[in-house]
Amino acid sequence: MFTITVTPRFGDADGLRHINNTVLANWFELGRSPIFRMFVPDLNLSYKTWTLILAHTDYDFVDELFFQHDVEIRTYVKRIGNKSFTAYHEAWQEGRLCVKGNATTVHYDFNKKITIEIPAEIKEKLKEHLLPENYASG
Amino acid sequence: MFTITVTPRFGDADGLRHINNTVLANWFELGRSPIFRMFVPDLNLSYKTWTLILAHTDYDFVDELFFQHDVEIRTYVKRIGNKSFTAYHEAWQEGRLCVKGNATTVHYDFNKKITIEIPAEIKEKLKEHLLPENYASG
Amino acid sequence: MFTITVTPRFGDADGLRHINNTVLANWFELGRSPIFRMFVPDLNLSYKTWTLILAHTDYDFVDELFFQHDVEIRTYVKRIGNKSFTAYHEAWQEGRLCVKGNATTVHYDFNKKITIEIPAEIKEKLKEHLLPENYASG
Amino acid sequence: MFTITVTPRFGDADGLRHINNTVLANWFELGRSPIFRMFVPDLNLSYKTWTLILAHTDYDFVDELFFQHDVEIRTYVKRIGNKSFTAYHEAWQEGRLCVKGNATTVHYDFNKKITIEIPAEIKEKLKEHLLPENYASG
Repeated sequence: MFTITVTPRFGDADGLRHINNTVLANWFELGRSPIFRMFVPDLNLSYKTWTLILAHTDYDFVDELFFQHDVEIRTYVKRIGNKSFTAYHEAWQEGRLCVKGNATTVHYDFNKKITIEIPAEIKEKLKEHLLPENYASG
Repeated sequence: MFTITVTPRFGDADGLRHINNTVLANWFELGRSPIFRMFVPDLNLSYKTWTLILAHTDYDFVDELFFQHDVEIRTYVKRIGNKSFTAYHEAWQEGRLCVKGNATTVHYDFNKKITIEIPAEIKEKLKEHLLPENYASG
Repeated sequence: MFTITVTPRFGDADGLRHINNTVLANWFELGRSPIFRMFVPDLNLSYKTWTLILAHTDYDFVDELFFQHDVEIRTYVKRIGNKSFTAYHEAWQEGRLCVKGNATTVHYDFNKKITIEIPAEIKEKLKEHLLPENYASG
Repeated sequence: MFTITVTPRFGDADGLRHINNTVLANWFELGRSPIFRMFVPDLNLSYKTWTLILAHTDYDFVDELFFQHDVEIRTYVKRIGNKSFTAYHEAWQEGRLCVKGNATTVHYDFNKKITIEIPAEIKEKLKEHLLPENYASG
């Protein structure tokens, strides 16, 4: 599991005075940065070096998040395929699970525009962060 | 179906020079505004008047979106429940379907913190925008 | 003058139920897109083709903007220098001037990392959108 | 001085592969959170409790910020008026000053829609974070 702590920005709250749903896309993306570094250690964004493209995300909003308190983003690897992997994220605030969701990322060659195999050594690193089989959130 | 056109902002493109995934959460939310108006005609954001809370979203990124061209967001009603409904969204650019996804919204009393029935007359309005049964995207 | 109309997104309003200040940076940037096209007609973002870098922005928040109504962004050219120009922006809602501000952009070679002269023909195009000398906002 | 560290999100970089200007509005706003807490200790966003409204911001982009490294936001109090104050912010990355700017906030009663005096005890707290008189950035 990877854990990061984010402090909500004033503008992250919306007119309902809770964190707007769109912010979770940003926070979960930030939670995947340690995984990005497994593939692109220096995070160089050029098409020669960056090899990840997002294919799917989903979000379940199970409780409200507020501006006033820090949020913990927990990230696990849920599935490791040959050319893609799925991350599982949770957002916690004050001991409450508030949002959970998944992100499927494809290993991709931006110049050739083709999917590519995930190298065995990166698969090994991803395995270290696998979601436990009987994991029950919240 | 509801249709809106959005012009990407410079900052909507990310380091891969395509539209960042997080922007779709904003665009699809904007695509739901006409539905928000069915429930809250003046869009008044106070807890007394606003009765919608988001429960789930998902996004399938099937092709890249770019900064250079306008994007059309098409929004349908996919499911009408007693206390919630699901919208289905598509983002099109230059004749290409680029992103599709769903958003489930719950009818909700923010003061009592309870879910509430969707009134029959709003259900009727939602029905006018139902996704065709045999709809095949793209 | 260039004019664009933006429809606020739900998440653009913050906990004070007005448009958050940070959104204006996005809207004014969008207002400059027609100017970007003078320099880079196809808006190609590669370092070979894109020649503009932002040096300064400022914002005066003179009245509140709300989620419920469309916003008109008016953009003028305020100053044309040899290697930079300044745009002046206004955000109007329901007949009220709400935000005004400036953005100074430098003509720049991203590969050589040096400032470059603005070609005479682009200066001519910029001149067509000059802010009137005795312009009084609001 | 208040200091916070932010880790850029993937989507904070734009098509030029540097941090988009609009992100600074968010980061500097986050840098003011400790000041917000002086006025509203529990950061409660209701109109009864929240007493701050933004009047002006400006940003000087003196060097590029990148996605790859953390950013330090330093915040000082530059001016303390009777009904408003100005914060001064700097964004540093890898030992380089990249952006500096100001934000003027007004003490405000959202229900009465009038400006209000800053209490003496809050002024004292603000003074503890005053920018040194001969301060030279960078």
